[in-house]
Amino acid sequence: MTLVYAAIKEQKQMIVNLEAWLEKGVAHAKARSFDPVVLLNARLAPDQYPLVRQIQSVCDSAKFTAARLADKDPPKHPDTEQTLDEIRARIQTCKAYLDTFKPADFEGAEKRLVPVAFMPGKVLTGLDFLFELQLPNFFFHATTAYAILRHNGVDLGKTDYIGNLSVRDR
Amino acid sequence: MTLVYAAIKEQKQMIVNLEAWLEKGVAHAKARSFDPVVLLNARLAPDQYPLVRQIQSVCDSAKFTAARLADKDPPKHPDTEQTLDEIRARIQTCKAYLDTFKPADFEGAEKRLVPVAFMPGKVLTGLDFLFELQLPNFFFHATTAYAILRHNGVDLGKTDYIGNLSVRDR
Repeated sequence: MTLVYAAIKEQKQMIVNLEAWLEKGVAHAKARSFDPVVLLNARLAPDQYPLVRQIQSVCDSAKFTAARLADKDPPKHPDTEQTLDEIRARIQTCKAYLDTFKPADFEGAEKRLVPVAFMPGKVLTGLDFLFELQLPNFFFHATTAYAILRHNGVDLGKTDYIGNLSVRDR
Repeated sequence: MTLVYAAIKEQKQMIVNLEAWLEKGVAHAKARSFDPVVLLNARLAPDQYPLVRQIQSVCDSAKFTAARLADKDPPKHPDTEQTLDEIRARIQTCKAYLDTFKPADFEGAEKRLVPVAFMPGKVLTGLDFLFELQLPNFFFHATTAYAILRHNGVDLGKTDYIGNLSVRDR
Protein backbone atom coordinates (compact mmCIF):
# COMPACT_ATOMS: atom_id res chain seq x y z
CA MET A 1 0.00 0.00 0.00
CA THR A 2 2.95 2.35 0.64
CA LEU A 3 4.07 1.85 -2.92
CA VAL A 4 0.68 2.58 -4.43
CA TYR A 5 0.36 5.65 -2.23
CA ALA A 6 3.78 6.83 -3.45
CA ALA A 7 2.28 6.93 -6.96
CA ILE A 8 -0.69 9.01 -5.77
CA LYS A 9 1.68 11.35 -3.94
CA GLU A 10 3.71 11.80 -7.13
CA GLN A 11 0.59 12.58 -9.13
CA LYS A 12 -0.23 15.30 -6.58
CA GLN A 13 3.30 16.71 -6.89
CA MET A 14 3.11 16.71 -10.69
CA ILE A 15 -0.21 18.61 -10.57
CA VAL A 16 1.45 21.23 -8.35
CA ASN A 17 4.20 21.45 -10.99
CA LEU A 18 1.60 21.73 -13.75
CA GLU A 19 0.01 24.72 -11.99
CA ALA A 20 3.39 26.45 -12.04
CA TRP A 21 3.85 25.73 -15.78
CA LEU A 22 0.42 27.17 -16.47
CA GLU A 23 1.20 30.34 -14.50
CA LYS A 24 4.50 30.69 -16.39
CA GLY A 25 2.43 30.45 -19.57
CA VAL A 26 0.09 33.18 -18.31
CA ALA A 27 3.06 35.43 -17.46
CA HIS A 28 4.52 34.75 -20.93
CA ALA A 29 1.21 35.70 -22.56
CA LYS A 30 1.04 38.92 -20.53
CA ALA A 31 4.65 39.83 -21.39
CA ARG A 32 3.91 39.26 -25.06
CA SER A 33 0.48 40.94 -24.83
CA PHE A 34 -1.66 38.06 -25.99
CA ASP A 35 -4.66 36.39 -24.35
CA PRO A 36 -3.59 33.32 -22.29
CA VAL A 37 -6.64 31.51 -23.67
CA VAL A 38 -4.65 31.23 -26.91
CA LEU A 39 -2.32 28.88 -25.03
CA LEU A 40 -5.26 26.90 -23.57
CA ASN A 41 -6.38 26.25 -27.15
CA ALA A 42 -2.91 25.45 -28.53
CA ARG A 43 -2.06 21.93 -29.67
CA LEU A 44 0.87 20.09 -31.24
CA ALA A 45 -1.10 18.36 -33.99
CA PRO A 46 -4.50 19.22 -35.45
CA ASP A 47 -6.03 15.95 -34.23
CA GLN A 48 -4.54 16.08 -30.74
CA TYR A 49 -6.13 17.61 -27.61
CA PRO A 50 -5.35 21.28 -26.89
CA LEU A 51 -3.71 22.35 -23.63
CA VAL A 52 -6.98 22.79 -21.73
CA ARG A 53 -8.00 19.21 -22.51
CA GLN A 54 -4.53 17.93 -21.61
CA ILE A 55 -4.91 19.56 -18.18
CA GLN A 56 -8.40 18.09 -17.77
CA SER A 57 -6.94 14.69 -18.69
CA VAL A 58 -4.12 15.01 -16.16
CA CYS A 59 -6.71 15.75 -13.47
CA ASP A 60 -9.00 12.92 -14.50
CA SER A 61 -6.18 10.44 -14.80
CA ALA A 62 -5.01 11.18 -11.24
CA LYS A 63 -8.59 11.07 -9.96
CA PHE A 64 -9.30 7.67 -11.52
CA THR A 65 -5.98 6.21 -10.40
CA ALA A 66 -6.73 7.02 -6.77
CA ALA A 67 -10.43 6.14 -6.89
CA ARG A 68 -10.10 2.80 -8.70
CA LEU A 69 -7.19 1.62 -6.58
CA ALA A 70 -9.04 2.58 -3.39
CA ASP A 71 -12.29 1.09 -4.75
CA LYS A 72 -14.22 4.36 -4.41
CA ASP A 73 -16.61 6.14 -6.77
CA PRO A 74 -14.89 9.20 -8.22
CA PRO A 75 -16.79 12.48 -8.63
CA LYS A 76 -17.76 13.40 -12.20
CA HIS A 77 -16.08 16.36 -13.91
CA PRO A 78 -17.60 17.03 -17.34
CA ASP A 79 -14.59 18.82 -18.93
CA THR A 80 -16.44 22.05 -19.63
CA GLU A 81 -13.64 24.43 -18.56
CA GLN A 82 -12.80 27.08 -21.14
CA THR A 83 -11.33 30.03 -19.25
CA LEU A 84 -8.18 30.36 -17.22
CA ASP A 85 -10.10 30.69 -13.97
CA GLU A 86 -12.19 27.63 -14.78
CA ILE A 87 -9.17 25.45 -15.46
CA ARG A 88 -7.43 26.79 -12.34
CA ALA A 89 -10.52 25.80 -10.34
CA ARG A 90 -10.52 22.31 -11.91
CA ILE A 91 -6.92 21.84 -10.79
CA GLN A 92 -7.84 22.89 -7.23
CA THR A 93 -10.81 20.50 -7.22
CA CYS A 94 -8.55 17.66 -8.30
CA LYS A 95 -5.91 18.43 -5.67
CA ALA A 96 -8.57 18.61 -2.94
CA TYR A 97 -9.94 15.23 -4.04
CA LEU A 98 -6.50 13.61 -4.04
CA ASP A 99 -5.93 15.02 -0.54
CA THR A 100 -8.82 12.92 0.77
CA PHE A 101 -6.79 9.71 0.25
CA LYS A 102 -4.56 8.15 2.87
CA PRO A 103 -2.04 5.31 2.53
CA ALA A 104 -4.45 2.90 4.26
CA ASP A 105 -7.03 3.45 1.48
CA PHE A 106 -4.77 1.41 -0.82
CA GLU A 107 -4.60 -1.71 1.33
CA GLY A 108 -4.66 -4.67 -1.07
CA ALA A 109 -4.80 -2.34 -4.10
CA GLU A 110 -2.12 -4.24 -6.05
CA LYS A 111 -4.29 -7.35 -6.28
CA ARG A 112 -7.70 -5.69 -6.66
CA LEU A 113 -9.23 -6.36 -10.10
CA VAL A 114 -9.98 -3.08 -11.86
CA PRO A 115 -12.32 -2.85 -14.90
CA VAL A 116 -10.77 -1.31 -18.01
CA ALA A 117 -13.19 1.45 -19.06
CA PHE A 118 -12.56 1.15 -22.82
CA MET A 119 -12.47 -2.70 -22.90
CA PRO A 120 -15.84 -3.97 -21.63
CA GLY A 121 -15.59 -7.25 -19.69
CA LYS A 122 -11.84 -6.93 -19.21
CA VAL A 123 -9.96 -6.22 -15.99
CA LEU A 124 -6.41 -5.51 -14.89
CA THR A 125 -4.85 -6.23 -11.53
CA GLY A 126 -4.34 -3.04 -9.54
CA LEU A 127 -0.60 -3.36 -10.08
CA ASP A 128 -0.95 -3.60 -13.87
CA PHE A 129 -3.63 -0.89 -13.88
CA LEU A 130 -1.20 1.45 -12.14
CA PHE A 131 1.96 0.73 -14.14
CA GLU A 132 0.66 -0.26 -17.58
CA LEU A 133 -2.22 2.18 -17.93
CA GLN A 134 -2.56 4.97 -15.37
CA LEU A 135 0.98 6.20 -14.84
CA PRO A 136 1.85 6.15 -18.58
CA ASN A 137 -1.39 7.97 -19.30
CA PHE A 138 -0.98 10.48 -16.49
CA PHE A 139 2.56 11.42 -17.51
CA PHE A 140 1.51 11.43 -21.17
CA HIS A 141 -0.95 14.26 -20.58
CA ALA A 142 1.34 16.11 -18.16
CA THR A 143 4.26 15.97 -20.61
CA THR A 144 2.06 16.97 -23.55
CA ALA A 145 0.77 19.97 -21.58
CA TYR A 146 4.39 20.90 -20.84
CA ALA A 147 5.38 20.35 -24.49
CA ILE A 148 2.57 22.59 -25.79
CA LEU A 149 3.80 25.41 -23.53
CA ARG A 150 7.47 24.82 -24.47
CA HIS A 151 6.56 24.74 -28.15
CA ASN A 152 4.89 28.12 -27.70
CA GLY A 153 7.97 29.71 -26.21
CA VAL A 154 7.21 29.48 -22.49
CA ASP A 155 10.44 29.41 -20.48
CA LEU A 156 10.28 25.94 -18.92
CA GLY A 157 13.02 23.43 -18.17
CA LYS A 158 13.40 19.96 -16.70
CA THR A 159 13.48 21.24 -13.11
CA ASP A 160 10.03 22.80 -13.67
CA TYR A 161 8.85 19.42 -14.91
CA ILE A 162 10.26 17.36 -12.03
CA GLY A 163 9.52 19.84 -9.21
CA ASN A 164 10.44 19.17 -5.59
CA LEU A 165 12.35 16.02 -4.70
CA SER A 166 12.36 14.39 -1.24
CA VAL A 167 16.16 14.44 -1.12
CA ARG A 168 18.13 13.96 2.07
CA ASP A 169 21.83 14.18 2.90
CA ARG A 170 23.85 11.10 2.07
CA MET B 1 10.25 -6.06 -4.99
CA THR B 2 7.29 -7.13 -7.18
CA LEU B 3 6.17 -3.53 -7.36
CA VAL B 4 9.56 -2.20 -8.37
CA TYR B 5 9.89 -4.93 -10.97
CA ALA B 6 6.47 -3.95 -12.37
CA ALA B 7 7.96 -0.53 -13.12
CA ILE B 8 10.92 -2.08 -14.94
CA LYS B 9 8.56 -4.33 -16.90
CA GLU B 10 6.53 -1.28 -17.93
CA GLN B 11 9.66 0.53 -19.09
CA LYS B 12 10.47 -2.49 -21.28
CA GLN B 13 6.94 -2.44 -22.71
CA MET B 14 7.12 1.28 -23.43
CA ILE B 15 10.43 0.81 -25.27
CA VAL B 16 8.78 -1.87 -27.43
CA ASN B 17 6.03 0.68 -28.14
CA LEU B 18 8.64 3.33 -28.95
CA GLU B 19 10.23 1.04 -31.54
CA ALA B 20 6.85 0.76 -33.25
CA TRP B 21 6.38 4.56 -33.26
CA LEU B 22 9.82 4.97 -34.80
CA GLU B 23 9.05 2.44 -37.53
CA LYS B 24 5.74 4.22 -38.24
CA GLY B 25 7.81 7.37 -38.61
CA VAL B 26 10.15 5.63 -41.05
CA ALA B 27 7.18 4.38 -43.09
CA HIS B 28 5.72 7.90 -43.08
CA ALA B 29 9.02 9.33 -44.34
CA LYS B 30 9.19 6.72 -47.10
CA ALA B 31 5.59 7.39 -48.16
CA ARG B 32 6.32 11.11 -48.29
CA SER B 33 9.76 10.58 -49.90
CA PHE B 34 11.90 12.25 -47.27
CA ASP B 35 14.89 10.97 -45.33
CA PRO B 36 13.81 9.52 -41.92
CA VAL B 37 16.87 11.22 -40.42
CA VAL B 38 14.88 14.45 -40.75
CA LEU B 39 12.56 13.04 -38.10
CA LEU B 40 15.49 12.01 -35.88
CA ASN B 41 16.62 15.64 -35.91
CA ALA B 42 13.14 17.14 -35.40
CA ARG B 43 12.30 18.92 -32.15
CA LEU B 44 9.35 20.81 -30.64
CA ALA B 45 11.32 23.85 -29.45
CA PRO B 46 14.72 25.14 -30.59
CA ASP B 47 16.27 24.52 -27.15
CA GLN B 48 14.77 21.06 -26.60
CA TYR B 49 16.37 17.72 -27.52
CA PRO B 50 15.58 16.32 -30.98
CA LEU B 51 13.95 12.91 -31.42
CA VAL B 52 17.23 10.97 -31.50
CA ARG B 53 18.23 12.42 -28.13
CA GLN B 54 14.76 11.77 -26.69
CA ILE B 55 15.15 8.10 -27.65
CA GLN B 56 18.63 7.97 -26.13
CA SER B 57 17.18 9.52 -22.96
CA VAL B 58 14.36 6.97 -22.80
CA CYS B 59 16.94 4.19 -23.02
CA ASP B 60 19.24 5.74 -20.43
CA SER B 61 16.42 6.50 -18.05
CA ALA B 62 15.25 2.86 -18.10
CA LYS B 63 18.84 1.63 -17.75
CA PHE B 64 19.55 3.81 -14.71
CA THR B 65 16.22 2.99 -13.06
CA ALA B 66 16.97 -0.73 -13.18
CA ALA B 67 20.67 -0.45 -12.34
CA ARG B 68 20.35 1.96 -9.40
CA LEU B 69 17.43 0.11 -7.84
CA ALA B 70 19.27 -3.21 -8.18
CA ASP B 71 22.53 -1.59 -6.96
CA LYS B 72 24.45 -2.56 -10.11
CA ASP B 73 26.85 -0.57 -12.30
CA PRO B 74 25.13 0.26 -15.58
CA PRO B 75 27.02 0.06 -18.88
CA LYS B 76 28.00 3.38 -20.47
CA HIS B 77 26.32 4.50 -23.70
CA PRO B 78 27.84 7.73 -25.01
CA ASP B 79 24.83 8.98 -27.07
CA THR B 80 26.68 9.04 -30.38
CA GLU B 81 23.88 7.55 -32.51
CA GLN B 82 23.02 9.59 -35.60
CA THR B 83 21.56 7.16 -38.13
CA LEU B 84 18.41 5.11 -38.08
CA ASP B 85 20.34 1.84 -37.79
CA GLU B 86 22.43 3.22 -34.94
CA ILE B 87 19.41 4.31 -32.92
CA ARG B 88 17.67 0.99 -33.64
CA ALA B 89 20.77 -0.79 -32.29
CA ARG B 90 20.75 1.41 -29.17
CA ILE B 91 17.16 0.41 -28.48
CA GLN B 92 18.08 -3.28 -28.84
CA THR B 93 21.05 -2.85 -26.49
CA CYS B 94 18.79 -1.25 -23.91
CA LYS B 95 16.15 -3.97 -24.17
CA ALA B 96 18.80 -6.69 -23.83
CA TYR B 97 20.19 -4.97 -20.72
CA LEU B 98 16.75 -4.67 -19.12
CA ASP B 99 16.18 -8.37 -19.85
CA THR B 100 19.07 -9.26 -17.53
CA PHE B 101 17.04 -8.15 -14.49
CA LYS B 102 14.81 -10.43 -12.45
CA PRO B 103 12.30 -9.54 -9.72
CA ALA B 104 14.71 -10.79 -7.04
CA ASP B 105 17.28 -8.16 -8.10
CA PHE B 106 15.02 -5.53 -6.53
CA GLU B 107 14.86 -7.04 -3.05
CA GLY B 108 14.91 -4.12 -0.60
CA ALA B 109 15.03 -1.59 -3.47
CA GLU B 110 12.35 0.68 -1.98
CA LYS B 111 14.51 1.51 1.03
CA ARG B 112 17.93 1.57 -0.66
CA LEU B 113 19.45 5.07 -0.65
CA VAL B 114 20.21 6.16 -4.22
CA PRO B 115 22.54 9.09 -5.01
CA VAL B 116 20.99 11.88 -7.12
CA ALA B 117 23.41 12.38 -10.03
CA PHE B 118 22.80 16.12 -10.44
CA MET B 119 22.71 16.92 -6.68
CA PRO B 120 26.08 15.92 -5.19
CA GLY B 121 25.82 14.63 -1.61
CA LYS B 122 22.06 14.11 -1.84
CA VAL B 123 20.18 10.81 -1.91
CA LEU B 124 16.63 9.60 -2.42
CA THR B 125 15.08 6.43 -1.06
CA GLY B 126 14.58 3.88 -3.83
CA LEU B 127 10.83 4.46 -3.62
CA ASP B 128 11.19 8.23 -4.09
CA PHE B 129 13.87 7.74 -6.75
CA LEU B 130 11.43 5.60 -8.72
CA PHE B 131 8.27 7.68 -8.39
CA GLU B 132 9.58 11.25 -8.08
CA LEU B 133 12.45 11.14 -10.53
CA GLN B 134 12.80 8.10 -12.76
CA LEU B 135 9.25 7.35 -13.88
CA PRO B 136 8.38 11.03 -14.55
CA ASN B 137 11.63 11.39 -16.48
CA PHE B 138 11.21 8.15 -18.43
CA PHE B 139 7.66 8.97 -19.53
CA PHE B 140 8.72 12.56 -20.23
CA HIS B 141 11.17 11.46 -22.90
CA ALA B 142 8.89 8.73 -24.25
CA THR B 143 5.97 11.16 -24.59
CA THR B 144 8.17 13.85 -26.11
CA ALA B 145 9.47 11.34 -28.70
CA TYR B 146 5.85 10.44 -29.47
CA ALA B 147 4.85 14.13 -29.62
CA ILE B 148 7.65 14.98 -32.08
CA LEU B 149 6.43 12.22 -34.41
CA ARG B 150 2.76 13.27 -34.00
CA HIS B 151 3.66 16.90 -34.63
CA ASN B 152 5.34 15.82 -37.87
CA GLY B 153 2.25 14.05 -39.14
CA VAL B 154 3.03 10.43 -38.22
CA ASP B 155 -0.21 8.46 -37.77
CA LEU B 156 -0.05 7.60 -34.05
CA GLY B 157 -2.80 7.33 -31.44
CA LYS B 158 -3.18 6.56 -27.78
CA THR B 159 -3.23 2.78 -28.35
CA ASP B 160 0.21 3.05 -29.97
CA TYR B 161 1.39 4.90 -26.90
CA ILE B 162 -0.02 2.47 -24.34
CA GLY B 163 0.72 -0.77 -26.23
CA ASN B 164 -0.21 -4.20 -24.89
CA LEU B 165 -2.12 -4.48 -21.63
CA SER B 166 -2.13 -7.56 -19.37
CA VAL B 167 -5.93 -7.69 -19.41
CA ARG B 168 -7.91 -10.73 -18.33
CA ASP B 169 -11.59 -11.58 -18.40
CA ARG B 170 -13.64 -10.20 -15.54
